[in-house]
Amino acid sequence: MDQQRPHQFPQDPNFRSRVITSFAKQAFMKTLGARLARVEPGLVEISLPFDESLTQQHGFVHAGAIASALDSACGYAALTLMPADAAVLTVEYKINLLAPARGPRLLAVASVKKTGKTLIVSTGDVFEKAAGEARKLVATMTATILVAENRGLTD
Amino acid sequence: MDQQRPHQFPQDPNFRSRVITSFAKQAFMKTLGARLARVEPGLVEISLPFDESLTQQHGFVHAGAIASALDSACGYAALTLMPADAAVLTVEYKINLLAPARGPRLLAVASVKKTGKTLIVSTGDVFEKAAGEARKLVATMTATILVAENRGLTD
Amino acid sequence: MDQQRPHQFPQDPNFRSRVITSFAKQAFMKTLGARLARVEPGLVEISLPFDESLTQQHGFVHAGAIASALDSACGYAALTLMPADAAVLTVEYKINLLAPARGPRLLAVASVKKTGKTLIVSTGDVFEKAAGEARKLVATMTATILVAENRGLTD
Amino acid sequence: MDQQRPHQFPQDPNFRSRVITSFAKQAFMKTLGARLARVEPGLVEISLPFDESLTQQHGFVHAGAIASALDSACGYAALTLMPADAAVLTVEYKINLLAPARGPRLLAVASVKKTGKTLIVSTGDVFEKAAGEARKLVATMTATILVAENRGLTD
Repeated sequence: MDQQRPHQFPQDPNFRSRVITSFAKQAFMKTLGARLARVEPGLVEISLPFDESLTQQHGFVHAGAIASALDSACGYAALTLMPADAAVLTVEYKINLLAPARGPRLLAVASVKKTGKTLIVSTGDVFEKAAGEARKLVATMTATILVAENRGLTD
Repeated sequence: MDQQRPHQFPQDPNFRSRVITSFAKQAFMKTLGARLARVEPGLVEISLPFDESLTQQHGFVHAGAIASALDSACGYAALTLMPADAAVLTVEYKINLLAPARGPRLLAVASVKKTGKTLIVSTGDVFEKAAGEARKLVATMTATILVAENRGLTD
Repeated sequence: MDQQRPHQFPQDPNFRSRVITSFAKQAFMKTLGARLARVEPGLVEISLPFDESLTQQHGFVHAGAIASALDSACGYAALTLMPADAAVLTVEYKINLLAPARGPRLLAVASVKKTGKTLIVSTGDVFEKAAGEARKLVATMTATILVAENRGLTD
Repeated sequence: MDQQRPHQFPQDPNFRSRVITSFAKQAFMKTLGARLARVEPGLVEISLPFDESLTQQHGFVHAGAIASALDSACGYAALTLMPADAAVLTVEYKINLLAPARGPRLLAVASVKKTGKTLIVSTGDVFEKAAGEARKLVATMTATILVAENRGLTD
């Protein structure tokens, strides 16, 4: 239902470099091996290659690793539309794990569903991609993001 | 409202060793530095010491790391009450991040809210603990867990 | 991201009459004044005209009334893809209220995001429509539905 | 885990009459037959007697009716702790339906889990009560509530 979403205009012309800089400061994304793959107004993609260090007891990627990449994608999608002096804080999210994922590569794709002065709602999906195969949907998330202003935080 | 919860009886007398063994196979918990702190019928606690490798861009523990520990605690709380041949699969969860957390130690406490033949619902909280201080609530989760039988998975 | 969704094939050729019959038995939908507006494989729309009896304290449609229509739409979207002898049970849902709604007409649009033997995940949006105006997004939901078989329930 | 919750102090000494007045303006609560049963600082209970007009296709109370009462209870629990000039807006909620409910009476019990200047998180349960029987847990919710100030809304 992307056609329902109004065109998104960034308030901060430097939104892309701001997301790149902030992402680079997320030590946890480095721990996961996650990489920023795409940054557009209202849309962010994060790539997560499979690694043994991310697995749960059955050898699949742990739901928490999937959620971490998708949560970051949802938050940064929101940041692309925030004023230059605002920071991102995740208020809450809900994730459905739809299929077990083994990789070799996961892609978290998030976009802004609704903007507001105080809160932004992002939704996103995680896909598993193997060479030469159609991508498979493995998770879906809805996240509520706070536009944090005057809290001593910057992104 | 713990007094509402019926007493929980494990179906598998070896529930504790089963949780310990399964947790040890979660490479991602090792990556996070998370440790199993307590296993009772219908209740599991996981400890997560602060580490720079877990932080987001403002220096707090990443929501994804917090959620990962709490998701595992919710899942293993469910596992303590499952039949011996069943495995844990997280269907979905929702987490509210209530306060930023910097450590030095986080504790994820999860318990079973409702058992069923097919699905188990667990709820849990994450607390931040510093020496000599009252613990601070930093996150709360509700998780739906599938009792996975006959799927070629074991825990 | 509708283009990601695989084509949905109903297992029960009478899925449409089954949904219509089941909806007619939902006394609560009558209480709300909700009407079934569209039934396709994996997709259901429910219309909810504004009525004073549905309002909250500020004169907007109560979140609960919006959620009720959308929950039913999510459940029936799932039912269109279930075997003939299965019944719908909502396991859980999460709804974000994105804008206050006053009507004159709300439309709940739900579709199946992922099918499974035991669980189906549906997502949906509610739109406000006024004559001659673009429709406005007022709420979004993700719902987990149980494919209830052998439980003495029919739809 | 109620023992974890800090004691809640109302900022508005007239919190109780404010909740009662606001509830009386919710036409939808009247439509449901819901009644305010208890108002304390940070805690609200709403009673919902069984009625045929609230049922779904299997004769149980519709998840939407249960969620509506519980959503109102969560919102009003938050309102008891808000400043006198603030109004309640539900940002989002998640509900797990834990058992089918037929009545004769449902009780929605909600309390504040975390207060903040901008957002309040409430959690709540719905119980089914029959004369002479232990109450049965039928649903659980986590709700995020906006402290709406300077938006032209009052409660």
